[in-house]
Amino acid sequence: ATHSLFLLPGDGIGTEIMVEVEKLIDWTNAQGLTDFSTDRGLAGGSAYDAHGVAITDEDTAKALAADAVIFGAVGGPKWDNVPYEHRPEAALLRLRKEMAVFANLRPAICYPALAEASSLKRELVEGLDILIVRELTGGVYFGEPKTITDLGDGQKRAIDTQVYETYEIDRIARVAFDLARTRSGRVHSADKKNVMKSGVLWDEVVKGVAKDYPDIKLEHILADNAAMQLVRNPKQFDVMVTDNLFGDILSDVAAMLTGSLGMLPSASLGAPDPVTGKRKAFYEPVHGSAPDITGKGIANPIAMIASFAMALRYSFNQIELANRVEAAIAGVLDDGLRTGDIAQDNRKVVGTEEMGAAILAKLKA
Amino acid sequence: ATHSLFLLPGDGIGTEIMVEVEKLIDWTNAQGLTDFSTDRGLAGGSAYDAHGVAITDEDTAKALAADAVIFGAVGGPKWDNVPYEHRPEAALLRLRKEMAVFANLRPAICYPALAEASSLKRELVEGLDILIVRELTGGVYFGEPKTITDLGDGQKRAIDTQVYETYEIDRIARVAFDLARTRSGRVHSADKKNVMKSGVLWDEVVKGVAKDYPDIKLEHILADNAAMQLVRNPKQFDVMVTDNLFGDILSDVAAMLTGSLGMLPSASLGAPDPVTGKRKAFYEPVHGSAPDITGKGIANPIAMIASFAMALRYSFNQIELANRVEAAIAGVLDDGLRTGDIAQDNRKVVGTEEMGAAILAKLKA
Ligand SMILES: CC(C)[C@H](C(=O)O)[C@@H](O)C(=O)O
Ligand SMILES: CC(C)[C@H](C(=O)O)[C@@H](O)C(=O)O
Repeated sequence: ATHSLFLLPGDGIGTEIMVEVEKLIDWTNAQGLTDFSTDRGLAGGSAYDAHGVAITDEDTAKALAADAVIFGAVGGPKWDNVPYEHRPEAALLRLRKEMAVFANLRPAICYPALAEASSLKRELVEGLDILIVRELTGGVYFGEPKTITDLGDGQKRAIDTQVYETYEIDRIARVAFDLARTRSGRVHSADKKNVMKSGVLWDEVVKGVAKDYPDIKLEHILADNAAMQLVRNPKQFDVMVTDNLFGDILSDVAAMLTGSLGMLPSASLGAPDPVTGKRKAFYEPVHGSAPDITGKGIANPIAMIASFAMALRYSFNQIELANRVEAAIAGVLDDGLRTGDIAQDNRKVVGTEEMGAAILAKLKA
Repeated sequence: ATHSLFLLPGDGIGTEIMVEVEKLIDWTNAQGLTDFSTDRGLAGGSAYDAHGVAITDEDTAKALAADAVIFGAVGGPKWDNVPYEHRPEAALLRLRKEMAVFANLRPAICYPALAEASSLKRELVEGLDILIVRELTGGVYFGEPKTITDLGDGQKRAIDTQVYETYEIDRIARVAFDLARTRSGRVHSADKKNVMKSGVLWDEVVKGVAKDYPDIKLEHILADNAAMQLVRNPKQFDVMVTDNLFGDILSDVAAMLTGSLGMLPSASLGAPDPVTGKRKAFYEPVHGSAPDITGKGIANPIAMIASFAMALRYSFNQIELANRVEAAIAGVLDDGLRTGDIAQDNRKVVGTEEMGAAILAKLKA
């Protein structure tokens, strides 16, 4: 049985770093470690240029049919003024919604070799390993009404709607608790229940789910305080579950803390199919399309490769191979290899291709 | 003409730190530097205990009538389970809304003496001086519908509504641009226009206002990136204007960066009265009621005193006196005095009263 990967490199450095993943896939296939079939599509600005939309129906259907989608990054100044519904991000939002990948896993890991690159003091981030579990298909991202109304006299009214239902909170909470079981057994749930009704429901449902996990320690934290505490003392956290909008911000803060932003992957997972147990899955680096360095061959492919490792782990149960890929990444860093974004004194700065090749070489060794 | 201050110490350490402000007021009055009349009310848990509400109509009316409200902090575990509409925070939200203090100014200053206390590396925060201008009376905090509906079968639906109208964005943008003129002439406007319609309108209106300020450099930034950039390199920012919810989070991150959280004041201002030019004003420390240290006499009164200094500056045009109070704060820190929250090697740790007295002594000197 062949497993299908649908590759959406996107824009900017997305296409450059995806190449390194393809080389990896070629090798794991050749070794008989995997049996991936791959197909490629367009997303974001490149899809807009080719088809006038951020992603075509055809590519969306392919994403829905694939065992896993491997996504690069979208956006760039070239598309700053395309019509709102066709902006590059629309591809991402459409795929998240249609694939129903509600559980966004964002690990924030501080690679030991890079602890110095953090803006935080070394002792605060060394060994940091947080997992943000972000709800990805609900909340203010998708709630209706979502409108701008002209009121006349030069006045407009804009409305966005944050909507959460019990089942949406319940299922994301279970993902967080399940993951906590494989880690330290602690979950922080972040909301603004002191101001938002969705926060009140969020907290109520999460506390209800916690009753099914007596072995897990749940702590509530207000989202603003969570942001502060992430900056003050990030190691107090292990798993943090939160809604779509807070997750967007908190996961970015957590990622930035590590000093390893160009290194961090993410996985977005759907519910397991009741019959096959398979879940739709979408893997992408946390960083963006970096238009400023596009075309220079200097982008860091590590987050992209680590996203592929997450696919091996979560979609294909290839735990050992995933571990090997992750160890290869840590290995080249320990060897002193760096891309420009993580350059350090006395470390060798290499380009995208050389970094990809070094990781592959480690894997072979 | 006497100027009226309405003091709402609130709960926890709020009452302890307010005492130090009252001593300051007594002195400035005695010196003839000010002519404040003061009255006191209850807010938060203490109001709930006395009257069954987070703030009475009578105290709300007094707040509305006063030239300035000086607020401590509210909340504590004792009131974790009071009915939602009477929770301590409700006092704050009611006052903000009824006083219509839409412009929340949150300076994040790194006191040189405390640069080491930041979790960030010293060079990244030394000299930091950011001003977050947060919209305070709109957005998801107050938008309707704001409900939890029972759908049956154990399912509920929670809704919060983010609403912004042109005039609300226009007026907060003008506050930010006006303040930028007194500072570095740069404004960042943060929103999520890639996902939220309110962000699209926000950006459109802010860009429109910018045309009236050709001398100010406006830069747009997505709120999630703003959070990251605050952590990565906070000194790139000067004035940042943003909505109620993003402002809640971003100002907390900015405050925490400084290592001076117990030191930071805030001001919330209304629109100038068309006839008198007076604006309603509400001053409060950024920190909370700190139930864990309440009653020990060790709370840091500096943020509270600095909030009073902001009142002198923004409500009473006592710029010189405000400068003197702020210099007195910096002075005692330079002298090596510290409260427990900012304790450092080789620095003398003092209690609330001693710190207040030291600041007053500096002022007299
Ligand atoms: C690009 C944007 C729509 C997206 C989001 O807001 O979710 C991004 O910030 C992310 O976190 O994946
Ligand atoms: C206490 C709470 C309602 C409040 C808010 O969310 O605005 C606080 O966090 C603040 O920032 O002043």
